[in-house]
Amino acid sequence: VTAGLWADLRGLLGEDALRDPVASPQYLHDATDWQGLRGRADAVVAPASTEEVARLVEWCYARQVAIVPRGGGTGLSGGAVPIDGGLVCSLERLNQVLSFEPELWRLNLQAGVTTDRVHQLARNSGLMFPPDPGAAAQSHIGGNIACNAGGPRGFKYGATRGYVTGLTAVIGGGRIITVGGPTRKDVAGYDICSLMVGSEGTLGVMTEAWLRLIPAPQCTVHVVGCYADVAAGVEAVLRVPGSGLVPATLEYFEGLCVEASRGAFPLSLPPHTRFLVVAEVDGSTAGAAALSTEVVEALEPGAIFAERVEGPGLASSLTRWRSGVSGAVSSIRGGKVSEDIAVPLDRLGEAILMTRAVGVEFGLPSCSWGHAGDGNLHATFMMDKEDRVDVARAGEAAQELFARALALGGSVSGEHGLGWIKQDQFQRQFGPGEVAIMTAIKAVFDPDGLFNPGKKLPDRRGADQSMAAPSPTVVADPARGIGQ
Amino acid sequence: VTAGLWADLRGLLGEDALRDPVASPQYLHDATDWQGLRGRADAVVAPASTEEVARLVEWCYARQVAIVPRGGGTGLSGGAVPIDGGLVCSLERLNQVLSFEPELWRLNLQAGVTTDRVHQLARNSGLMFPPDPGAAAQSHIGGNIACNAGGPRGFKYGATRGYVTGLTAVIGGGRIITVGGPTRKDVAGYDICSLMVGSEGTLGVMTEAWLRLIPAPQCTVHVVGCYADVAAGVEAVLRVPGSGLVPATLEYFEGLCVEASRGAFPLSLPPHTRFLVVAEVDGSTAGAAALSTEVVEALEPGAIFAERVEGPGLASSLTRWRSGVSGAVSSIRGGKVSEDIAVPLDRLGEAILMTRAVGVEFGLPSCSWGHAGDGNLHATFMMDKEDRVDVARAGEAAQELFARALALGGSVSGEHGLGWIKQDQFQRQFGPGEVAIMTAIKAVFDPDGLFNPGKKLPDRRGADQSMAAPSPTVVADPARGIGQ
Repeated sequence: VTAGLWADLRGLLGEDALRDPVASPQYLHDATDWQGLRGRADAVVAPASTEEVARLVEWCYARQVAIVPRGGGTGLSGGAVPIDGGLVCSLERLNQVLSFEPELWRLNLQAGVTTDRVHQLARNSGLMFPPDPGAAAQSHIGGNIACNAGGPRGFKYGATRGYVTGLTAVIGGGRIITVGGPTRKDVAGYDICSLMVGSEGTLGVMTEAWLRLIPAPQCTVHVVGCYADVAAGVEAVLRVPGSGLVPATLEYFEGLCVEASRGAFPLSLPPHTRFLVVAEVDGSTAGAAALSTEVVEALEPGAIFAERVEGPGLASSLTRWRSGVSGAVSSIRGGKVSEDIAVPLDRLGEAILMTRAVGVEFGLPSCSWGHAGDGNLHATFMMDKEDRVDVARAGEAAQELFARALALGGSVSGEHGLGWIKQDQFQRQFGPGEVAIMTAIKAVFDPDGLFNPGKKLPDRRGADQSMAAPSPTVVADPARGIGQ
Repeated sequence: VTAGLWADLRGLLGEDALRDPVASPQYLHDATDWQGLRGRADAVVAPASTEEVARLVEWCYARQVAIVPRGGGTGLSGGAVPIDGGLVCSLERLNQVLSFEPELWRLNLQAGVTTDRVHQLARNSGLMFPPDPGAAAQSHIGGNIACNAGGPRGFKYGATRGYVTGLTAVIGGGRIITVGGPTRKDVAGYDICSLMVGSEGTLGVMTEAWLRLIPAPQCTVHVVGCYADVAAGVEAVLRVPGSGLVPATLEYFEGLCVEASRGAFPLSLPPHTRFLVVAEVDGSTAGAAALSTEVVEALEPGAIFAERVEGPGLASSLTRWRSGVSGAVSSIRGGKVSEDIAVPLDRLGEAILMTRAVGVEFGLPSCSWGHAGDGNLHATFMMDKEDRVDVARAGEAAQELFARALALGGSVSGEHGLGWIKQDQFQRQFGPGEVAIMTAIKAVFDPDGLFNPGKKLPDRRGADQSMAAPSPTVVADPARGIGQ
């Protein structure tokens, strides 16, 4: 980093905005850190307003410097990692709630507000912001919007896109655009707001948003079903929508995932449980009780056990257990590759068995869990992350998994996004016509291709994204192409 | 129409696809017909497959002929009207349900399937397709998607966009693209599907869609509140979300609208009712009953009358009354101008009073009704449609209404779209940055500007859209710029 660069950025944004990337390595990775994905930035800056972001982008456009927008850094696809130089634009100082009107169910905030804070604000006013992608204490709402974050409640409530009614963003050249706002219905223009949700920082830097909240349900009830095999478990899962029932969540866990996590499960699972279904039913106290009975009835045929479960602290024990599942699976062999493929709901069983088959073919233990009701798997291969053969095999297994998910009519990513780690899948999932449209849309917002280059879409710019002469690029882990 | 043209189109699509526009004037207008908006087409064709549409668009692109996609022709903004020549592409023969899997809550269909058929299919399987824009017997699902159609249930269930998971469309040059599909979660690409919903036929011809359905509620209960003035009525409306209550619909009717339609209302309204609230509450039998009690409590303060209403045939009587409101208001002076502005919910009262004030300023009786919970008004000025002074005044009043809706932070269109009738509002609602982005996006899909030119966005092509030499253009009604 040159002195001239620092002086420029200091002049643009002030001293408080500057972060030395060498002294602040936390800006150079995301939650794929354990895979060894670490990037390199020429500078890390944290502007304090939309106008400062605009000035910064204008400066970057004038110098053809790449900009990597960054939220809380909890992503699972390397989307916020500066791969090869350029500027990291951290939204951490854009952390203000601009207005919160609980009686109107709406919230206007800056991109750097944490997901936890959104949940807390909503909860304290009897409201709910349904998306719940995890890591909420650290993750930013801006990152959630950039990834169209999902989570377990997607089955009933959908993902983030459905809750964003307005956005302010800085696009190519440093232009500020505002689309939507607090109005609940607006069909005058094209829906640029929905387009930007899920764009993974490739169309601009989102700085502010209007969120739509909904009244919180009075009560949540848990239902658990245990099955001896995938066939019985998947049949039970499908019987829930087939019976016209809408629990808030409909999650499954199978095989080694059940083995690895059963000790932490708050109830004693029948010993031959190989497939576990956990559903949350919400609503009024009476409504949730009635619905839970129906969900139990739907889950019962073929089950070893299917019941409403309750008890003091059960909900938080289940949450703790759920958040420990990934780590428990990792611990089996010291590492894992876990991919968030999604398939049409009727292909769920095939996708689960396919994941197992790919594991067998590549000589790796495998399992899966995830948002059953949305056909969204966390398809996982266990590996010894110190063993390069294992790591390479896991990478190949993931490639095969993607190909077979697409063959099932599915997607390579249900909720994490492509980021850097899966950007090579873009041209596999989409045909040339769709690739051409999306690439052209990218160019509308970012004609010079400076926003998050190499993420989501293949990078059309020259290889060098840094501000200096070509420099040693980050040594990315050989397991690139691997998500969590 | 030249013999060569007919021969060309016959060769492309077959005899069954050809409609003589002179002999088939129904293709030259939409539901704005009564305002005198009638267009002119060089030809009307009805292709029978996506491939035929692609061939047609390729042919049009080769000859620089405008293409106006057309559904059921029930729009209220002239969006499907061929303004000045070119081809009308009717989707009426693309009317097949491709697959319906009620147990998976999904439906794959062609664009020309009627909205009624979608509702019936859903209902017969215990499901619901919530958007309900009216005119369902004639309107096509493709048109609903093109307009992001809303309707009363938007308050609880949102508009059409939330129920479309996949689209097939023919874009510029005749390329077929498919985005999304039956998978419920997919974040791999940009959300082209959401972008195309509400694009009013300006980005291509949508030929097929995947819809997401939801289980139908067991039961619907009606609540009615009567108020002596706007202030009391709007306070009551806002108390519903303020109390955390989510009825399926939350509609209002005020002033002359109540006067004009009270005779057909299925219950006797207290005589000094000037503001009427009608809400539908749905859910399980017990849940809807409990919620209706809470909605009544929220509507009670300041009310002349606020109660759950029931009785044999009440629901259908209310539906009949509701669908007659527009006609009843028209009958006051023989015509009306009715605009679907939307404002942030807290500005609802101001928007209603503003509509009245504009009426007074322009010397026209006025009133409004609409989707109160979404801040979406049908702001109406009554006029004698035979009186050109009246008609001109109503047009000016509408312009003033739009300006004031925008000043309230709202939109010129909550659900009808801009079409032809409001396309001059596009550059008023959006700033230059947003206009530039949307115009560039149009060019990505339709580089030659041939899809529905002059609709939604200002036409950037030359004035002549016809296939022949410049010809007398349609005499549009002087009331252009006026919606219903």
